[in-house]
Amino acid sequence: MAEQTRTVRVPIVERVLEANDDIAAVTRADLARRGIFSIDLIGAPGSGKTALLEATLQRLAGRGSEGVAADSVAARGLRRRPAARHEVAVLVGDLATRRDGDRLARWCERVVQISTGEGCHLEAGQVRDALRDVELQGVDLLFIENVGNLICPVGFDLGQNVKVGLFSLTEGDDKAAKHPYLVTAADLILLNKIDLAPYLTFDRDGFVADVRLLNPTVPILEVSATTGVGMDAWLDWIDRGVARPRH
Amino acid sequence: MAEQTRTVRVPIVERVLEANDDIAAVTRADLARRGIFSIDLIGAPGSGKTALLEATLQRLAGRGSEGVAADSVAARGLRRRPAARHEVAVLVGDLATRRDGDRLARWCERVVQISTGEGCHLEAGQVRDALRDVELQGVDLLFIENVGNLICPVGFDLGQNVKVGLFSLTEGDDKAAKHPYLVTAADLILLNKIDLAPYLTFDRDGFVADVRLLNPTVPILEVSATTGVGMDAWLDWIDRGVARPRH
Repeated sequence: MAEQTRTVRVPIVERVLEANDDIAAVTRADLARRGIFSIDLIGAPGSGKTALLEATLQRLAGRGSEGVAADSVAARGLRRRPAARHEVAVLVGDLATRRDGDRLARWCERVVQISTGEGCHLEAGQVRDALRDVELQGVDLLFIENVGNLICPVGFDLGQNVKVGLFSLTEGDDKAAKHPYLVTAADLILLNKIDLAPYLTFDRDGFVADVRLLNPTVPILEVSATTGVGMDAWLDWIDRGVARPRH
Repeated sequence: MAEQTRTVRVPIVERVLEANDDIAAVTRADLARRGIFSIDLIGAPGSGKTALLEATLQRLAGRGSEGVAADSVAARGLRRRPAARHEVAVLVGDLATRRDGDRLARWCERVVQISTGEGCHLEAGQVRDALRDVELQGVDLLFIENVGNLICPVGFDLGQNVKVGLFSLTEGDDKAAKHPYLVTAADLILLNKIDLAPYLTFDRDGFVADVRLLNPTVPILEVSATTGVGMDAWLDWIDRGVARPRH
């Protein structure tokens, strides 16, 4: 029975992935044509993906902590604000609720919440469809916050330029070793909630060593979305991505 | 293209789940015949599944914190130790590494680590095969620690009696609402790392309200595997499950 299951599944999974990859290739070409650098952010539930994006959007917009005024969000009048570092769009995936989308909409005028229902990851078709709902004129940076899951999102190309793997101190120091496919696929590893280091037992050297075994060259940045530690290095990494020629 | 993907996938997923359910039904009957109460423990990466099981096994064995001596593990001589509350077996699933299995083997003589490779959840065939490697004579309690994932494990029957959904304070108070399928399917919700409440912003009333909307009757227990808070109530819940007639 188990053998039967396996022989049934593999070719179908391959066909699904092929169809997904075809859509992703079109998205990638379209984003490149528009000069948009795109990031697929992958992390466990509670690793702080939305909090990191909130802190990131806040800094990219060159603002303080007051957020976007409600009437400004409603009017969507301002396209380029003074001192905005990039023009950003955000897609955010969750099984249910639009809580993350609402949080991010405080800091960004172009946010689309994608409800995946029972889906454990975003797929290229969902990203393509969501992008049709965004005014991309002038945008140079796209964040895609994937469904909270360290496993399933890794295999699905969304048309992004880079994958960022987000881990956090509260998950424990063994999570890189236990999720080799994400670590291998990642273009950047972020280690979030670094402000909690004094209160937790987390072997940072061991975590880094596990990452290095799987992906010897990937940059690893320690950040705290709460205190802002490491955010400058993360923003610099984003700047270099936006500046890099795409085709 | 997206439509094509959808029409291809659904019937195949149903066939995979049917095959899985057939295996699970055989496992369930076999475990009932042996008088074994089985728990599928589902939680996010870093929610503390293994730490909870370590603390649980330690208490069930009626021991202090000294663990099982290495030579005792090797010999596997003792079947029923003085004051052991239950005779326990544990299956633990991870993509990679046998770290969790090694941790649990300090407290239990019957532990099997299941490596799922790229698999985001345990399936019934893996549980059936792993149980063949365990001496089940005398066992009355089986823990199955699923792969760290709040989504995919929910749909796969393993032959367990109950599903326990484990959330933790460090994941944020929105995780029940965002994972309705787990909450709806759960026979018990554990809220772990409750000892960290003073250091985190976590709306416990809001979390409970979200659970209640989805599953009005499920028990919710607050626990800390670290400090032991709530462990007695969790052990009592287990006792009642073991004592309940199964057929």
